[in-house]
Amino acid sequence: MKLEDLLNHTSEWLKGTGPNADIVISSRIRLARNLDKIPFPHWANKKQSEETLKTIEEAISKVDYLKNATIFRLATLDGIDKQFLIERHLMSYEHAQKSNSKAVVIDSEEIVAVMINEEDHLRIQVMQSGFNLYEAWNIINRIDDALAKELSFGYLTDWGYLTACPTNTGTGMRGSVMLHLPALVMTRQIERVLAAISKLSFTTRGFYGEGTQATGNFFQISNQVSLGHSEEEIINNINGLIRQIIEQEEQAREMMLARNRPMLEDRIYRSFGILKSAHIISSQETSELLSMVRLGSDLGLLKEIDRRCINELFIITQPAHLQKMEGKKLSTQERDVKRAEIIREKLKCK
Amino acid sequence: MKLEDLLNHTSEWLKGTGPNADIVISSRIRLARNLDKIPFPHWANKKQSEETLKTIEEAISKVDYLKNATIFRLATLDGIDKQFLIERHLMSYEHAQKSNSKAVVIDSEEIVAVMINEEDHLRIQVMQSGFNLYEAWNIINRIDDALAKELSFGYLTDWGYLTACPTNTGTGMRGSVMLHLPALVMTRQIERVLAAISKLSFTTRGFYGEGTQATGNFFQISNQVSLGHSEEEIINNINGLIRQIIEQEEQAREMMLARNRPMLEDRIYRSFGILKSAHIISSQETSELLSMVRLGSDLGLLKEIDRRCINELFIITQPAHLQKMEGKKLSTQERDVKRAEIIREKLKCK
Repeated sequence: MKLEDLLNHTSEWLKGTGPNADIVISSRIRLARNLDKIPFPHWANKKQSEETLKTIEEAISKVDYLKNATIFRLATLDGIDKQFLIERHLMSYEHAQKSNSKAVVIDSEEIVAVMINEEDHLRIQVMQSGFNLYEAWNIINRIDDALAKELSFGYLTDWGYLTACPTNTGTGMRGSVMLHLPALVMTRQIERVLAAISKLSFTTRGFYGEGTQATGNFFQISNQVSLGHSEEEIINNINGLIRQIIEQEEQAREMMLARNRPMLEDRIYRSFGILKSAHIISSQETSELLSMVRLGSDLGLLKEIDRRCINELFIITQPAHLQKMEGKKLSTQERDVKRAEIIREKLKCK
Repeated sequence: MKLEDLLNHTSEWLKGTGPNADIVISSRIRLARNLDKIPFPHWANKKQSEETLKTIEEAISKVDYLKNATIFRLATLDGIDKQFLIERHLMSYEHAQKSNSKAVVIDSEEIVAVMINEEDHLRIQVMQSGFNLYEAWNIINRIDDALAKELSFGYLTDWGYLTACPTNTGTGMRGSVMLHLPALVMTRQIERVLAAISKLSFTTRGFYGEGTQATGNFFQISNQVSLGHSEEEIINNINGLIRQIIEQEEQAREMMLARNRPMLEDRIYRSFGILKSAHIISSQETSELLSMVRLGSDLGLLKEIDRRCINELFIITQPAHLQKMEGKKLSTQERDVKRAEIIREKLKCK
């Protein structure tokens, strides 16, 4: 698989299918693992890092579930390639900062992505469309078990898996769910909800992970504590919390429809109208308008466009995607024009 | 002719035809005339006003050019009817304030409108689409001559026609031209242009005449002085001024196209997109967006819609028109919804 092949592919997490897909974009589980004989990536020397890379690459090639996966060494990727992978949520921003002895492994369905020599030797992530943490857990378990047969992980009975950062020690697991909460934002309930989430030891992030702001009414919620809980507890906890948030968003949507349907329709149709006609559009405005269009589609008000098409637009209108499609570097102004062009094209075809 | 028949008719001045129709909406000439034997309307008693009304109605029925005209006595019209005529520029706001002994005469093409017992006994107006003051003058001259055969007008050799307000004394003529000047507004040259106009003893008004603000980049320019100039001088003066403004607007349009075409296109297409999709829209926003759409059509950027259709939308989206179409009184909120509905319908059909 070449990186460019992904351009014509819809990532698993953008399919818009799965349980509660009207509110939950995707579910993600990631595991942090480290080889027991080599220092953590930040402490390893060049030789040790290279050894880690080769050892893990070899192990991955033996995992049945990953036989359709491709290993991309970061040294072979340019800046746009790396940003492209970040935009597709296949690689972290931190991983892209340095290239030496680093790689990312991606399966052809974009369900699994493995980062080698990120903060930990191994960061395995499994994505599922919709609210589907258990299925993601099933898949990641099989991969983890298969890798454990090939590799010896740092593990202490009292502590569990050892990780570079103590917050990941224990299960090394993080469960994250990406939610689309426009109604909670529009009815000004979101602050209250986010405050409650943070009290319960969960963290909220924006669409692009750690340090990013919530744009387009997207909120990524993950567990903060990995130590002292079993994998099942972690998933059950986050599952229970997400179920409550889904319910609140549903109620907020119903309330808006009941109390001010014309205003809501106006906002949704206008957003759709602007996206279909703009000739210059920023990334920020695109997210905001697409969020309204997605809400319109989810409420059955906008029938001309499906969820998958909207989800794809969120991704392909990002800077690196635009540049990959155009096959060259583009300035901000050029991207704003290209972005508008692609949106118009995409919204016409259906 | 019934008032409602006008709903399915495009007024002469909205046809979007005639010279320089890309910048000049319409040309208008109006004459003020008074009967010499009866005091001006504000000073006349009830009996005198009734006599004026009947005398003029009778005279009008004998004018060949007005054989297809209908006389509407204001006492037979309700508030929405009157506002409807104001919106169509067939009657002044002042004329509508009281109904006693007042009438308005409208020909079926809406080229001619005559107000009886407004500020003067007779206010005759002739409208032409585009930049066409001379044709308007030709028509109004024929009507004035025909009426002069039936009526005896107040006239002094040294002063000319006598009028209730001294600013109209002399020819009693006012020439007005309605201009669409979006490029001068967008390039911030309009203040300079308006200041120059006012120094030259011309007045500028908005779309709805005296006391109204310029919305949708429309400016109505008329001569201020009627005394001491011949009709021909007045028309030549205003014609010369308008020709200069047209030239400046044309240059500003060319400059915008040359310097920032993508920004201009974006603004025009977005305006069109919002009009096609909004479900709630105010009168003010409608004017602003239609102005951009009209510019787009005039520049050949928007081919899906013609000038006549845009001009009609400016008028039929006004409050009284919406209520006439709906056949009942509508609140502001209801009008904003109905307005959006009509715009969507109209922009779909072509």
